[in-house]
Amino acid sequence: MKIREHCGVFGIWGTPDAAVRTYYGLYALQHRGQESAGIVVSDGKQVVSRKGLGLLNEAISRDDVAGLKGHLAVGHVRYSTTGSKRVQNIQPLVIEYSQGLIAVAHNGNLVNARTLHTEYERRGSIFQTSTDSEVIVHLLADPDHASRPDRIGHCLNHLKGAYSFLLMTPTQLIAARDPLGFRPLCIGKIGDAHVVASETCAFDLLGARYLGEINAGELVVIDENGLRSEQFAHAGKRSQCVFEHIYFARPDSYIFGTNVHTVRMNLGRNIAIEHPADADVVIAIPDSGRSCAMGYALASGIPLDRGFVRNHYVGRTFIMPEARDQGVDIKLNVVRPVVQGKRIVIVDDSIVRGTTSKGRIKKLRDAGAKEIHMRISCPPIRHPCFYGIDFPTTTELFAAKHSVEELRDFLKVDSLQYQSIEGLLASLGEQANHYCIACFTGQYPVRPEEKMEKLSMETHS
Amino acid sequence: MKIREHCGVFGIWGTPDAAVRTYYGLYALQHRGQESAGIVVSDGKQVVSRKGLGLLNEAISRDDVAGLKGHLAVGHVRYSTTGSKRVQNIQPLVIEYSQGLIAVAHNGNLVNARTLHTEYERRGSIFQTSTDSEVIVHLLADPDHASRPDRIGHCLNHLKGAYSFLLMTPTQLIAARDPLGFRPLCIGKIGDAHVVASETCAFDLLGARYLGEINAGELVVIDENGLRSEQFAHAGKRSQCVFEHIYFARPDSYIFGTNVHTVRMNLGRNIAIEHPADADVVIAIPDSGRSCAMGYALASGIPLDRGFVRNHYVGRTFIMPEARDQGVDIKLNVVRPVVQGKRIVIVDDSIVRGTTSKGRIKKLRDAGAKEIHMRISCPPIRHPCFYGIDFPTTTELFAAKHSVEELRDFLKVDSLQYQSIEGLLASLGEQANHYCIACFTGQYPVRPEEKMEKLSMETHS
Amino acid sequence: MKIREHCGVFGIWGTPDAAVRTYYGLYALQHRGQESAGIVVSDGKQVVSRKGLGLLNEAISRDDVAGLKGHLAVGHVRYSTTGSKRVQNIQPLVIEYSQGLIAVAHNGNLVNARTLHTEYERRGSIFQTSTDSEVIVHLLADPDHASRPDRIGHCLNHLKGAYSFLLMTPTQLIAARDPLGFRPLCIGKIGDAHVVASETCAFDLLGARYLGEINAGELVVIDENGLRSEQFAHAGKRSQCVFEHIYFARPDSYIFGTNVHTVRMNLGRNIAIEHPADADVVIAIPDSGRSCAMGYALASGIPLDRGFVRNHYVGRTFIMPEARDQGVDIKLNVVRPVVQGKRIVIVDDSIVRGTTSKGRIKKLRDAGAKEIHMRISCPPIRHPCFYGIDFPTTTELFAAKHSVEELRDFLKVDSLQYQSIEGLLASLGEQANHYCIACFTGQYPVRPEEKMEKLSMETHS
Amino acid sequence: MKIREHCGVFGIWGTPDAAVRTYYGLYALQHRGQESAGIVVSDGKQVVSRKGLGLLNEAISRDDVAGLKGHLAVGHVRYSTTGSKRVQNIQPLVIEYSQGLIAVAHNGNLVNARTLHTEYERRGSIFQTSTDSEVIVHLLADPDHASRPDRIGHCLNHLKGAYSFLLMTPTQLIAARDPLGFRPLCIGKIGDAHVVASETCAFDLLGARYLGEINAGELVVIDENGLRSEQFAHAGKRSQCVFEHIYFARPDSYIFGTNVHTVRMNLGRNIAIEHPADADVVIAIPDSGRSCAMGYALASGIPLDRGFVRNHYVGRTFIMPEARDQGVDIKLNVVRPVVQGKRIVIVDDSIVRGTTSKGRIKKLRDAGAKEIHMRISCPPIRHPCFYGIDFPTTTELFAAKHSVEELRDFLKVDSLQYQSIEGLLASLGEQANHYCIACFTGQYPVRPEEKMEKLSMETHS
Repeated sequence: MKIREHCGVFGIWGTPDAAVRTYYGLYALQHRGQESAGIVVSDGKQVVSRKGLGLLNEAISRDDVAGLKGHLAVGHVRYSTTGSKRVQNIQPLVIEYSQGLIAVAHNGNLVNARTLHTEYERRGSIFQTSTDSEVIVHLLADPDHASRPDRIGHCLNHLKGAYSFLLMTPTQLIAARDPLGFRPLCIGKIGDAHVVASETCAFDLLGARYLGEINAGELVVIDENGLRSEQFAHAGKRSQCVFEHIYFARPDSYIFGTNVHTVRMNLGRNIAIEHPADADVVIAIPDSGRSCAMGYALASGIPLDRGFVRNHYVGRTFIMPEARDQGVDIKLNVVRPVVQGKRIVIVDDSIVRGTTSKGRIKKLRDAGAKEIHMRISCPPIRHPCFYGIDFPTTTELFAAKHSVEELRDFLKVDSLQYQSIEGLLASLGEQANHYCIACFTGQYPVRPEEKMEKLSMETHS
Repeated sequence: MKIREHCGVFGIWGTPDAAVRTYYGLYALQHRGQESAGIVVSDGKQVVSRKGLGLLNEAISRDDVAGLKGHLAVGHVRYSTTGSKRVQNIQPLVIEYSQGLIAVAHNGNLVNARTLHTEYERRGSIFQTSTDSEVIVHLLADPDHASRPDRIGHCLNHLKGAYSFLLMTPTQLIAARDPLGFRPLCIGKIGDAHVVASETCAFDLLGARYLGEINAGELVVIDENGLRSEQFAHAGKRSQCVFEHIYFARPDSYIFGTNVHTVRMNLGRNIAIEHPADADVVIAIPDSGRSCAMGYALASGIPLDRGFVRNHYVGRTFIMPEARDQGVDIKLNVVRPVVQGKRIVIVDDSIVRGTTSKGRIKKLRDAGAKEIHMRISCPPIRHPCFYGIDFPTTTELFAAKHSVEELRDFLKVDSLQYQSIEGLLASLGEQANHYCIACFTGQYPVRPEEKMEKLSMETHS
Repeated sequence: MKIREHCGVFGIWGTPDAAVRTYYGLYALQHRGQESAGIVVSDGKQVVSRKGLGLLNEAISRDDVAGLKGHLAVGHVRYSTTGSKRVQNIQPLVIEYSQGLIAVAHNGNLVNARTLHTEYERRGSIFQTSTDSEVIVHLLADPDHASRPDRIGHCLNHLKGAYSFLLMTPTQLIAARDPLGFRPLCIGKIGDAHVVASETCAFDLLGARYLGEINAGELVVIDENGLRSEQFAHAGKRSQCVFEHIYFARPDSYIFGTNVHTVRMNLGRNIAIEHPADADVVIAIPDSGRSCAMGYALASGIPLDRGFVRNHYVGRTFIMPEARDQGVDIKLNVVRPVVQGKRIVIVDDSIVRGTTSKGRIKKLRDAGAKEIHMRISCPPIRHPCFYGIDFPTTTELFAAKHSVEELRDFLKVDSLQYQSIEGLLASLGEQANHYCIACFTGQYPVRPEEKMEKLSMETHS
Repeated sequence: MKIREHCGVFGIWGTPDAAVRTYYGLYALQHRGQESAGIVVSDGKQVVSRKGLGLLNEAISRDDVAGLKGHLAVGHVRYSTTGSKRVQNIQPLVIEYSQGLIAVAHNGNLVNARTLHTEYERRGSIFQTSTDSEVIVHLLADPDHASRPDRIGHCLNHLKGAYSFLLMTPTQLIAARDPLGFRPLCIGKIGDAHVVASETCAFDLLGARYLGEINAGELVVIDENGLRSEQFAHAGKRSQCVFEHIYFARPDSYIFGTNVHTVRMNLGRNIAIEHPADADVVIAIPDSGRSCAMGYALASGIPLDRGFVRNHYVGRTFIMPEARDQGVDIKLNVVRPVVQGKRIVIVDDSIVRGTTSKGRIKKLRDAGAKEIHMRISCPPIRHPCFYGIDFPTTTELFAAKHSVEELRDFLKVDSLQYQSIEGLLASLGEQANHYCIACFTGQYPVRPEEKMEKLSMETHS
């Protein structure tokens, strides 16, 4: 599936090479955002940042990293929609205000940002970006808040929606997660240094120990006095994003305390039991369908094989108009002897518009597949997300407008089955009721104050 | 395994967008060479080329490709050792001589290039590159050869060693393969146009039909009069490079007429039978061990699982000195619940220095693996290659200097087994005796005329 | 003389290719600032900007210019001190606030910017740049000012110091000059379109007609309803910057209504009368001393000759450390037969540190000059400027700390004479009492509210 | 005048920072070629080169220069016609052949290069460039020449036409000038090091002492044994290029032993006497007409003034199509009060197509000039040059096809006068009969063997 996403955040306090560690932390989180990247570092006095568009290595050069000196750093990788590729929107935002300098790295989406933005503009404030994240700085700069002892927590309580924040001053690393815990945020240690990241795979790369999640409604401050934690808001009913497990996160990560590959194997096992198929071979749509296909093969007893090979250099080519017209698939190729004359179960994580899947089904047919049974690891996506996942609009979402039968006919497969809601929940284990599954059910934990569809501000992170 | 490699060639005659097709043909062959790339195109009169260092998209820009107009093109991707990253060595070589302009794309290695080079210099000729490939042009420019009707075949007969050549004049595409057939070269069609490539995966990407191999000792000329073929030399005993199947080629390609993934599955099945293990799970070292691990799991009945996850952005990061010191593995991460408390069979394609494998074994132990049984899909590599595969020097090749037991102790695995020569041959099917396996046995089909170790000329392609 | 300078502004309303015209307008003003350049264009709705460091052609590419569509544009070229080469400080500033979007191009220096900055920060406002120019936008955004009919004039009246402003909204071009008229600002027409620029040489390049100056205290608004002018403040005693005539402006420009070359010829004539010399030849330090040397030759009857040739490629080379050590003068070379055995009058516009002049005097001696009589076109500079001219600090200014005799000994010239204050005023003609000559006399027309020396904000434009 | 030109060469033996000195030597010679630049350096063993298109600082970066280590270097700046901007043609050519490595820097044009090229191709040799300069290397590589003790002189004797060569082997700097001495080549010393350059201004920049010219037909070899000179050919009747004095060379240089500014002053004095004018002011077309205008003013007694100001940033802008259409003159602007109501003598070095001059005359009229009398410092150019000066084709040369009266009418001037041949010769002093003036007279010192107009090889240097 191709869903437009999102963000990864990383922070560290306490190693002399904080920027280098942040670089590799972000590299491990690169799958969470490929449109821009930034690192901000501090030596306790001087704050320096490097940001740019594109992948981490395009946005920030080796010399850039080598030049970023300090023991404290935060970083951000980000997806953004085309219109908003404005350089000043690249995070971490670095803003000077009356209280000094602050850097902001945000994963999630605020549902009352527009309201707050308008209110502050009316008072004469000027915004620098078109991101929802900037409102936190205007809240902090507000003279009514500036003198409170609980300043940061007080300001966070003005926000509604999804946020995992890393804030940085010249001396402090501050991590905070919204009271419903929409987006992940983990904490770990390397020696005496603290690290905070969206996923645990960043800890593994650096050899850091995973300590656990930042809690919903928790605010953590790390500085030369060590780590202090407070609960700035009562945690509400957990609304963890189920899509982190289905699609976004890396299989090796622990998200909301559970390993992603394990959940996906479960999804595959459950759908194999719900929707068996009389077939010769199970194949995955690489790379996102692989764990689920393994689960399907295991539970069904049908052998797993490699029906598609993925070009390793995807993302390092460009598409010429001629190639597009000729239907060149730069990503996947069929392994002919695996599919020729076979009855195939093909496993994918989800279907958005359906056009890419249709092309791949055709390639299997052209290579001689006898029967094709498609299994999707999650239920049909029928509702928009207000908390940071940028699904296509409802009109583009095939499942929002058509029945499963219509999709089966469109794709020209012999059978097509989705995971049930029950199968999904069963795969998540004990915490199943701590997840937000609004994109399948339409039941939203927090309603946006403003018409989200009309937001001129970009939905980001 | 990390072997230094090598070359891919692609040519096309007969589509108006020859350069765009060549670009995608080379993209499909990118795994055969990442150090430089070049495309030469002709509209029948004007010949234009674009070349550069790095991956295809770094070497040649979108605008470059769009500007290359013509119906005839050849391209080349190439590995080269550090010292020889001279821009003028980037292929296709484009040389003007008395007979006009010629472009040369070469995969393989000539064993008498130094002898010919010296001979022509003595006559007053001046060489432009330090590649062995340039001698073919001096042979063609030689006034003794210039007037012969069989000029090209006559000149090819002066060469010894491995070569799959694509030559291009302003009007002709010429393909030739050495009489022992060391390196692959395939021919196909798209509509009325002919395509020639190192591997069939390039045909699949373009929607071309695979017609078969260029034969050993065959010379094919394609121009406005169509395709003409001649046998410029009697084909000798076939010496097809077995390493194409073990490591280089893509699993979806047909090489020497046989599918690569199928051969690798066979290698896995054979070693599972030769060297069973009492274990809970089979895991592959991605990406090259995956087909073989599937074969092992199938033949042994032990379930396959994903013990390692590969970062998709490998090759798009840089290694800071600090990270190297901290042992950061930018490529693979362990999926902890897959290995914790398990007895594991780990399958890899080969072992060169042993240091990378050792690090990964340690990561499995750190993640809680109980037993580790390593299986290698080919026999130990103990001899250098003179035909285009750039193995490390004998002193660096662990297997050339140590017993399997010593390696097992070095790696700290519970058992270590290699494929036998017999198992290897069995996996190749009917054509087993058509392969060069000198790197395992030391029995060379053609001896070099000159001391290859002392060649100041670079070993390339 | 090498004085660190400053800014040029250009604006246009009413031609379909406003950005191209602005590009050439800035090119004509390039001598006013080489460190950064920017153009902002509007088609009445969409506002787009391009900015960058370096000369105009480094900052803004041909494609950039071609892509800037609209009938309304403002541009800026700028000098800035090293510490402040922050990209966000490059003008025109483009800021979105409650009233929409505004672009700001500023030439001059405000003396109460720090006071206003601090006041707005206390209210919760956040600043985006470290320039003094940004305060005008915060004044405009202030809800107390927003609703006034005379909003812009009202806000300008809060500012003290030197400013020639070009402001741009999506539909309007606004030009304003401070009540004392420190910096120049001219208005002209091309067909029906209006143009505004720092110097008339920009009009000449574009074939525009020069209409006259924007008056001190005048505010001009140009939009689809034509041009409207108002006097937002009573013009005070004119304080036109005399350095525009002595050094900054181009000889072909009219500044404050008077041609620059003519003033410089007058300066040369006056000093020839005040300080004659018994000599064979008059030579200029190119390029800034040339007009003055012509005046000296004319009034003295001593023939003018080319003693120095200027390398045309100055600014397009870099200085290697070795070259600096060897005293390589990349700018000027002596024409030996012109100076050998001669008694020379050498004319320069001013002396700052004295080191460059000393080197050139030595070159004349080495080439065989018999006597050297130096004449400087202005009086000694002894006081800092608060209105936008970035002289070296007082300690670096030779004349601020030493007598003319000490300087003569330091330079090793046979005689050294400066222009007198009276000679200077005489050269300026009827308007002589409309000039600020504080850098010579220390009598300042407006005192800064804050200690200018301690400003952490950069002095710019 | 805008004549397409040509080359500058520089070489040095004996300073540890040879590349840095060569960089500055070439910078002083930048006016001799702006299309490409190259430096080759040797430490006695290793030879390294850096080359590129554009001005010196575009072609070779600061880091490039810093990385070029050795005591021996040669450099080249070059003009080339559009079609031949092939990177491999950039000089110094660096070629490896049987005798080792050689670098070639050439100023001039060979008239028998095509003949030699064809002859060597027939023998099987392959050429790397389309320059005439490469033939010298094929002559040196010829086994018939290789063993001769007078090898280099022997090979030079095969060449016909104009050449000032700098050749470099890993240990030797070799300078040679053709027997008629068409192009300049000077020798000097810095400490114990020898320097060779096209013009003496390169010596001045480096603080080198000018020793004199390399003689016509002289070959100089500089290495660790010092300097050796031989006369490889009898010097014929000197044919020094008069255009070096009229236009190419810098005013501060000594060329063929005479100072350029002095010759140009003489040209101005002579034409003032031959062709007086009743006028108020003499003005030059900057920059090439300035010395001549000074001579005119001096001899006529009419005061010199600055009628045009040259934009210092010419060459650092690009021309947008719109600007071209609007007749934007990016180079010169009129100083209105200098010309308004005046009778003007305008002095230029030459007229090629006439269109640029026509535009400038019009600007003077628009600024109010009452009468315009044009004086050209040389006679009309009516014949092509075969020795390295790339005049426009005869059809584009206004003077080749039209009378002076026709040109006067075309330009719309009140009078137009050229220098006479006699006046030209008188300006050159005692050596007047040592010059080639074929472009004025059509009497060529050496006829080309081949039809030069049809040369597919580029005329270069």
